[in-house]
Amino acid sequence: MAHRRDTSGESTHERILRVAAEIFARKGYHATGVAELGEAAGLQRGALYYHIRSKEDLLYDLSKRHVEEALERGRAVVTQDIPATEKLRALAREHLRIMAARCDEVTVVIREMHALSGKRATQLTALRDEYENLFAEVLRAGVREGVFASADRVVVLGVLGMFNWTHVWLDTERGPLSPEDIADRLTDLVIHGQLRPTGHVAQPTAAPAAEPAPATIP
Amino acid sequence: MAHRRDTSGESTHERILRVAAEIFARKGYHATGVAELGEAAGLQRGALYYHIRSKEDLLYDLSKRHVEEALERGRAVVTQDIPATEKLRALAREHLRIMAARCDEVTVVIREMHALSGKRATQLTALRDEYENLFAEVLRAGVREGVFASADRVVVLGVLGMFNWTHVWLDTERGPLSPEDIADRLTDLVIHGQLRPTGHVAQPTAAPAAEPAPATIP
Repeated sequence: MAHRRDTSGESTHERILRVAAEIFARKGYHATGVAELGEAAGLQRGALYYHIRSKEDLLYDLSKRHVEEALERGRAVVTQDIPATEKLRALAREHLRIMAARCDEVTVVIREMHALSGKRATQLTALRDEYENLFAEVLRAGVREGVFASADRVVVLGVLGMFNWTHVWLDTERGPLSPEDIADRLTDLVIHGQLRPTGHVAQPTAAPAAEPAPATIP
Repeated sequence: MAHRRDTSGESTHERILRVAAEIFARKGYHATGVAELGEAAGLQRGALYYHIRSKEDLLYDLSKRHVEEALERGRAVVTQDIPATEKLRALAREHLRIMAARCDEVTVVIREMHALSGKRATQLTALRDEYENLFAEVLRAGVREGVFASADRVVVLGVLGMFNWTHVWLDTERGPLSPEDIADRLTDLVIHGQLRPTGHVAQPTAAPAAEPAPATIP
């Protein structure tokens, strides 16, 4: 079925999804009325219901579209013939690019997904699990290569959590850093950890400083 | 002011907060009506409004009580005279214990905090920032000790995100692991990273396996 498009090439359905993501992210799914969505999209109630069946449908459609896109881009990384460390970096970069470009959708999926019910909840959970599994695959590949220590479930969820939580602070805290810069720093943390090579240790941990220099402490 | 307490020692106000956390976590803040809260707490509308001024007040009170408790327990760790690596582990353990014991409150604070407005939003944000700063302090202490590589803002938020995101999966994915087990595994990941010591590398990354053993891949 052909959808009518405006001069920017955006169809009415796409416009509704974009507007809904923006309002759901700002006000919350439950606090948003259908009338408000129609108004923001420049549609009468009847015209809005021509394009969507219900508010929950809208939440499902925009979440699904977003997760499917992330999944497609993630799969393209994971199927490349490169070492696991490089896969992890590339996957993190795609993840952060999506976080930055689709901030509203990410917030809505993470915060409101629990509002979906029945078949829609099951389908979206399956898509999200598939996306999460990309991280598990990369860690398992690293273990097979003998490079990574673990692809343990807790480690997978820990790594994924570190990247997912960026949606909370990316907008306000990233400063001049690009999504790729942030992805690289977090990837380095996952790969190398915080421990400095022993050759560089200024003081052994067994002898903590009696009084740390106050200048660096707020 | 003395509050009446039931046989379990819980005051009416505490019961309202507990019930509200449970319902907000399950249904969402905006989707929950005041009448429903009163019913679940066994109170008539008038009696409920004797204890709370508004639904937003309730959200604020339960969030504040939760973050303040987390803050108090975190501060007790951070002010100990122990090396930064041990502080990080102890802070992570407290964090995971709270996540496990106060699952509803954690979900509500993380998911619904944006529904607070004005002074209440400012005050809760300040408390949350103070809690986040505990992680920053521990990483800075590690850098001063010459043990940790960075207390960079992105690293702090990455570490915090890894621990905060546990609220999403702790209930369903932890299996037989205790909150302390999970805290330890994530702490090890932060400290040591994923990279195996070079002495243990089975295959160099430059020469990836042509065909990985299928037995380990689902």
